[in-house]
Amino acid sequence: MIWKVRNVEEKKISSAVIRRLPRYYRYLGELLENGVERISSNELSDRMKVTASQIRQDLNNFGGFGQQGYGYNVANLYSEIGKILGIDTKHSMIVVGAGNLGQAIANYADFAKRGFVIKGIFDIKPELKGTSIRGINIYMLEDMEEFIKKNSIEIAALTIPKSEAVNVGERLAAAGIKAIWNFAHTDLNLPENIVVENVHLSESLMRLSYNMVNQGKATKKSRKS
Amino acid sequence: MIWKVRNVEEKKISSAVIRRLPRYYRYLGELLENGVERISSNELSDRMKVTASQIRQDLNNFGGFGQQGYGYNVANLYSEIGKILGIDTKHSMIVVGAGNLGQAIANYADFAKRGFVIKGIFDIKPELKGTSIRGINIYMLEDMEEFIKKNSIEIAALTIPKSEAVNVGERLAAAGIKAIWNFAHTDLNLPENIVVENVHLSESLMRLSYNMVNQGKATKKSRKS
Repeated sequence: MIWKVRNVEEKKISSAVIRRLPRYYRYLGELLENGVERISSNELSDRMKVTASQIRQDLNNFGGFGQQGYGYNVANLYSEIGKILGIDTKHSMIVVGAGNLGQAIANYADFAKRGFVIKGIFDIKPELKGTSIRGINIYMLEDMEEFIKKNSIEIAALTIPKSEAVNVGERLAAAGIKAIWNFAHTDLNLPENIVVENVHLSESLMRLSYNMVNQGKATKKSRKS
Repeated sequence: MIWKVRNVEEKKISSAVIRRLPRYYRYLGELLENGVERISSNELSDRMKVTASQIRQDLNNFGGFGQQGYGYNVANLYSEIGKILGIDTKHSMIVVGAGNLGQAIANYADFAKRGFVIKGIFDIKPELKGTSIRGINIYMLEDMEEFIKKNSIEIAALTIPKSEAVNVGERLAAAGIKAIWNFAHTDLNLPENIVVENVHLSESLMRLSYNMVNQGKATKKSRKS
């Protein structure tokens, strides 16, 4: 049995495929937990509510891990997608902002399971100095740059108010951070070599609102016809 | 001066355009706050790092709010996009789960400014009964259905563990909720008339990881050439 894996660098993967990969990873992880060893694209299609041809197309981007008549080897596919996503190695992370959202991220142990290890939390409130969340120390924001360099931090989760986010984003970039997970309600406009993944909750809520309002219309329409 | 607004129901708007609309809304809101009355697609393009032709195309979907040689009337465009997004009216919301994430959502006053009014928070911990967050009462989960019906709740933010989310999602659907803002790390598989907007934080972090790992490769490549 040969698992052909094309060199991922050879071709540019569309951002739509990249958006879907973590979902494949999640489903495959659940299958693994349930002891499923192999699965056909049709079975995966039923579970994920994505067409089987979409699944085959998506996974073909990475060289086709399946075999006709056998389907996909779950453990193999899970591990290959993990490699593609870069979560087969550990990544050091800090959380900037110890408010509710920063605490939620620090408390979510599953990130560590995926290889994202939170090494420190930063805030400006003096009363937080020396305290910790789930064993992770809270430090003062003024010490952030030194900490990043000393601990080779790659990723910063930014959960501070919009008014401070652009400035702190620039400080993170200057300190050599590779990627920012931005929860602040603003764009950061950093140099292109800094990866920024935005989680704009207000925008997500507006999309929900749009779909809700238009869902109503569609339903009324289909009832008429 | 005529502001032509085509009937939005006439055509199906692509989900990519819908994804971008809240970002237009955010930028226009900032312009309004700064007293800017009108703006050309070129100026908006500079600020948003989107091509001017993309902006014109996107906004043309809704009937073109601009005028040649004048540009866009900021207040008008802001209000029209607000209508399209369905945030020109108030929506009643509950938060299910009073953990860090639920607290973060309850504490974020900006959602109320956009018309999303949180009427109650639900949890299973008896010690939370009778307490409140930012003046919003915390109730017990068993009283959720009655509360939804009595208060005509449209939206539920679901911030509970994955193991409980599918079951509570079904209860919300049965109680007549219109939309679920799902933060649980699972798909809900509800009837199609229930709008589900997922915020899967682990998946967002994996996308960041993918882009970070591949950013490195791209940079190395371009340095070589």
